[in-house]
Amino acid sequence: MTTDDKRSLVAIILGSKSDWEVMRHTALQLEQLGVTWEGRALSAHRATDALLQYLEGLPGRGVEVIIAAAGGAAHLPGVCAAKSHLPVLGVPMESASLKGMDSLLSIVQMPAGVPVGTLAIGKAGAVNAALLAVAILGGKHPEHRRVYQDFRAKQTAKVTADSVLSL
Amino acid sequence: MTTDDKRSLVAIILGSKSDWEVMRHTALQLEQLGVTWEGRALSAHRATDALLQYLEGLPGRGVEVIIAAAGGAAHLPGVCAAKSHLPVLGVPMESASLKGMDSLLSIVQMPAGVPVGTLAIGKAGAVNAALLAVAILGGKHPEHRRVYQDFRAKQTAKVTADSVLSL
Amino acid sequence: MTTDDKRSLVAIILGSKSDWEVMRHTALQLEQLGVTWEGRALSAHRATDALLQYLEGLPGRGVEVIIAAAGGAAHLPGVCAAKSHLPVLGVPMESASLKGMDSLLSIVQMPAGVPVGTLAIGKAGAVNAALLAVAILGGKHPEHRRVYQDFRAKQTAKVTADSVLSL
Amino acid sequence: MTTDDKRSLVAIILGSKSDWEVMRHTALQLEQLGVTWEGRALSAHRATDALLQYLEGLPGRGVEVIIAAAGGAAHLPGVCAAKSHLPVLGVPMESASLKGMDSLLSIVQMPAGVPVGTLAIGKAGAVNAALLAVAILGGKHPEHRRVYQDFRAKQTAKVTADSVLSL
Amino acid sequence: MTTDDKRSLVAIILGSKSDWEVMRHTALQLEQLGVTWEGRALSAHRATDALLQYLEGLPGRGVEVIIAAAGGAAHLPGVCAAKSHLPVLGVPMESASLKGMDSLLSIVQMPAGVPVGTLAIGKAGAVNAALLAVAILGGKHPEHRRVYQDFRAKQTAKVTADSVLSL
Amino acid sequence: MTTDDKRSLVAIILGSKSDWEVMRHTALQLEQLGVTWEGRALSAHRATDALLQYLEGLPGRGVEVIIAAAGGAAHLPGVCAAKSHLPVLGVPMESASLKGMDSLLSIVQMPAGVPVGTLAIGKAGAVNAALLAVAILGGKHPEHRRVYQDFRAKQTAKVTADSVLSL
Amino acid sequence: MTTDDKRSLVAIILGSKSDWEVMRHTALQLEQLGVTWEGRALSAHRATDALLQYLEGLPGRGVEVIIAAAGGAAHLPGVCAAKSHLPVLGVPMESASLKGMDSLLSIVQMPAGVPVGTLAIGKAGAVNAALLAVAILGGKHPEHRRVYQDFRAKQTAKVTADSVLSL
Amino acid sequence: MTTDDKRSLVAIILGSKSDWEVMRHTALQLEQLGVTWEGRALSAHRATDALLQYLEGLPGRGVEVIIAAAGGAAHLPGVCAAKSHLPVLGVPMESASLKGMDSLLSIVQMPAGVPVGTLAIGKAGAVNAALLAVAILGGKHPEHRRVYQDFRAKQTAKVTADSVLSL
Repeated sequence: MTTDDKRSLVAIILGSKSDWEVMRHTALQLEQLGVTWEGRALSAHRATDALLQYLEGLPGRGVEVIIAAAGGAAHLPGVCAAKSHLPVLGVPMESASLKGMDSLLSIVQMPAGVPVGTLAIGKAGAVNAALLAVAILGGKHPEHRRVYQDFRAKQTAKVTADSVLSL
Repeated sequence: MTTDDKRSLVAIILGSKSDWEVMRHTALQLEQLGVTWEGRALSAHRATDALLQYLEGLPGRGVEVIIAAAGGAAHLPGVCAAKSHLPVLGVPMESASLKGMDSLLSIVQMPAGVPVGTLAIGKAGAVNAALLAVAILGGKHPEHRRVYQDFRAKQTAKVTADSVLSL
Repeated sequence: MTTDDKRSLVAIILGSKSDWEVMRHTALQLEQLGVTWEGRALSAHRATDALLQYLEGLPGRGVEVIIAAAGGAAHLPGVCAAKSHLPVLGVPMESASLKGMDSLLSIVQMPAGVPVGTLAIGKAGAVNAALLAVAILGGKHPEHRRVYQDFRAKQTAKVTADSVLSL
Repeated sequence: MTTDDKRSLVAIILGSKSDWEVMRHTALQLEQLGVTWEGRALSAHRATDALLQYLEGLPGRGVEVIIAAAGGAAHLPGVCAAKSHLPVLGVPMESASLKGMDSLLSIVQMPAGVPVGTLAIGKAGAVNAALLAVAILGGKHPEHRRVYQDFRAKQTAKVTADSVLSL
Repeated sequence: MTTDDKRSLVAIILGSKSDWEVMRHTALQLEQLGVTWEGRALSAHRATDALLQYLEGLPGRGVEVIIAAAGGAAHLPGVCAAKSHLPVLGVPMESASLKGMDSLLSIVQMPAGVPVGTLAIGKAGAVNAALLAVAILGGKHPEHRRVYQDFRAKQTAKVTADSVLSL
Repeated sequence: MTTDDKRSLVAIILGSKSDWEVMRHTALQLEQLGVTWEGRALSAHRATDALLQYLEGLPGRGVEVIIAAAGGAAHLPGVCAAKSHLPVLGVPMESASLKGMDSLLSIVQMPAGVPVGTLAIGKAGAVNAALLAVAILGGKHPEHRRVYQDFRAKQTAKVTADSVLSL
Repeated sequence: MTTDDKRSLVAIILGSKSDWEVMRHTALQLEQLGVTWEGRALSAHRATDALLQYLEGLPGRGVEVIIAAAGGAAHLPGVCAAKSHLPVLGVPMESASLKGMDSLLSIVQMPAGVPVGTLAIGKAGAVNAALLAVAILGGKHPEHRRVYQDFRAKQTAKVTADSVLSL
Repeated sequence: MTTDDKRSLVAIILGSKSDWEVMRHTALQLEQLGVTWEGRALSAHRATDALLQYLEGLPGRGVEVIIAAAGGAAHLPGVCAAKSHLPVLGVPMESASLKGMDSLLSIVQMPAGVPVGTLAIGKAGAVNAALLAVAILGGKHPEHRRVYQDFRAKQTAKVTADSVLSL
């Protein structure tokens, strides 16, 4: 499902290939739930033109949700939201010195008019971006809604089943 | 469109009625784009049962996106995401002492498994929650996609038209 | 004393089983002071219904103090305080990126009407939650008050006894 | 009930008389719930001896809970906890430059061995300190437990009754 | 000098026209030092194409330094640096809730490969961006170097002349 | 005592004349305690040479303690400590956007080898710099020690005298 | 010189014996400069009475400067300043989760009336507390002034001698 | 190119030799782009006179841009800007406890009148200081402009070439 030879419902875009170690959990979560995806590492600052070109092609190819991840002065999700009318979800990467506080504020504090839905810093945000994308897709695609509801129900059952603590 | 006698596509939920002064911009933006909404002030802490009951009824009544706003230890969006499989967007309110940094972290730092898409602190986030909701609705409803694209195009045209600065 | 077959005076609730490595110091401290406890890992977000059900049963079974620990968007102590009229003590777990600042603000900044008494981030908070619980129990149970006073006096004696510094 | 001529169950201690404007909400909340209190402004830094003397007398006079409020380098709650075995609740005052972040960290980050249960910065914390004190008293005094449960039930009813939002 | 009918050495670009109240001090400082400028309000998010087109034309029209100001998720200076090889100076605007800490981190924490020289938050940064631009221009244009040296010498003389404090 | 015609024991140096509104409380406190002072507004950045020259002359003229105040990138106390072997006390001024957190860190985080004793942000720090200076002078001058002890005793008596709170 | 059998000019007081690993650099620096010291680990919270008793005895035994170090809710330097009229220097220890930001604010943000001169977080602050103490002692004791001036001159000479950088 | 026997266009100045491990990336990047440089470790606090003397000699020897790096209370870039009319770029070093937040604020929050262009904390800032210096030099030296444009074009090509992500 990761190849581009069939329609991808979700596009994952990274500011740097080094973010893939964390953001692959987005792809894994999508695959676990049966949602097709494609991914690009296209820095908003170092590959601006290629990024803009890629963004323009997404709706025509059937992509319905964009997940963008970046760290530090994390402009990538905002650029995606500026150039696309698809829903954009942003994932702040943990940065070297400021531990992702810079990434978070650079993504979440978007001005009125261009929205980015921001998830948690790091791996939790990577997983949740996939889950929120599936929840969004579920509005249109009943099969994804069912899969998501099953996933959530199983998650709850698993957490509840083994809850007693002992020393 | 604000009454409940027709199907609302978006539910706006507040942690406190005092948040309405800011969050009414969400409703105004939705109405400007022709999207039906309904709203409740149901504190996660002071009206937990009523909130849970309200959340359970939303899918059956046709609501497709939840927008939840709260300040301080802002648990409301997380509770919505815990109890609903609809996409949940969270808006951190500017709090009295810490200016919304507490609200932001309480909303955005959700654990893996239960996603909230978080917007900016305050009015910008209120407006953008409406816009992201419309972008999400646009995946299923072509008329909302067209309205959103028009809105974005006009916004860009307006900003671009009058850009020269002079003293 | 950790089993549930006798009345537990303190209930320890965790947002995640992974918090037990730190929060077992709460249980150890309670046992050292002769206070019975029971524990559950019941995420506010992933096991909401089981959590609410567990909270409702506590007063009837004789629990007098709740200690709740969570990290990140740490809503668990607030949910406990929303659904129980027992005193709730909250312990912020050190989180991966923001080192517990998110956990602390999510727990301590509760709105007026639903109180949580918050302890320090991490192990110091885990130990002190046990001690504050015993101080609270001491108001009603003279034997716990005496044990706590002894503990505090011994702690002071130990610190004072060996205080001279040398290179 | 504010005079000292009958037994006070709660002692309110302030680092500065200027904190009374906020902390009087603690007293008002206690009175509303029928709990007797007494109050002193005794700076940990400027009136240390008088503070220590006052703390020593509290258990003998029947005080069961201490509420201490201070701002900036807010040492007062910690000093109370160091010198008393009663439960100590701390309320961080909003400070001039750092808006209470200094007060919060100075109160909540107590070392293992000497616990302070910390509430929110400012007025919300002032009100909640009173409520948590009543919840603690309710463990021993059934009449206070009943009053607190009534208060909470009425609070929930009030919030739930008038929850619909309209423009 | 503010009109475009002669070559401008400095281009001032704003994320929003509302930033002009602060950033006009950049223009005033440049004019005081005899440096030509031109200005545009071209949001990186709402006017992306117009911004990119404007940036491409700058070198050909003789602009030598870009000063970009923005607030919140302040991506504008980074977009300028991504699409231009001229030196880019960034000025963080004081934002509504977070007082410019978000703006600062969004501008200064650029990834390796695309540099932005960042000035202080607000008016001090606005003035200093002008001065740093003149210092940069002074490397090539001796007349600007002389004017800048004179300005700095007069500034020092003024501060030094009237330094005695009295009650 | 504020004129320079007699020996001043304390030198107050400001980064900007605008800091005098706060720092005059240093001078007032010194005068109240009978300690002679002199003051200069000599920016570390805009009047470096005059500052260095002034610092060199201080020991010869009998100054024994330096109090330096600055805001933002507050380098002045550090420059004083770099160029003088007198004890240097630093007072962080509340800055426009970051409320003195920048000033505090710029003053207190000095590297090993060049010490600055830092006081609180704003007026409390201004007053306390005077008091710490007098405590330092008291080591050598018994009359200042006595005056300081009297001041502290009266302060304690005043705070203790009027401590009862009532609604 | 570390024993108590001769007069100590400096008293080093720690909130916890575990701080000695960092604070022994204070003692080492004092010894290197020929200044006598003594040290105690006396927690403000766990050994309050012993601390107060120790502080009262210091002036009579000839101690002239107090250096106090603590972490987290670091009340120790403030308690020293509250109970002693000697100059008190505070060193914030790096804490487990918040890296000393809590310690710093708890020490530096003292209210007007009770001054603490605060040094940097961790080892740099430990060394500089010793140096500032010697600078203070130098006001009264010419031999310490000379030793301090020599130390500073040698430090400068060492740094300056070997300054050229090469790859 | 690192020796001083030919004219250096860029001077790199460090607050401490220990910063060289990070800042050597500035020198390496300059060399890769064919720009001559020279470097000194001259602490603003421990080697003030040598620093001031070095700064005065730079214009006469042909240096056109200064890059200054420091950590903690990072005054070095500000001192360079105070004493030189060349463009000064500042690089905040990651500090031990506060991870460079102190360094960043100490460098970027310069008062109006004395500008420092600040780069990111740590290695990204070290590389970008070199690149911004070359962009500045490119205004006067066409060969450096060409080299910089080539570097940027190759960087973009490299990032764009290999952008597809797969599990």
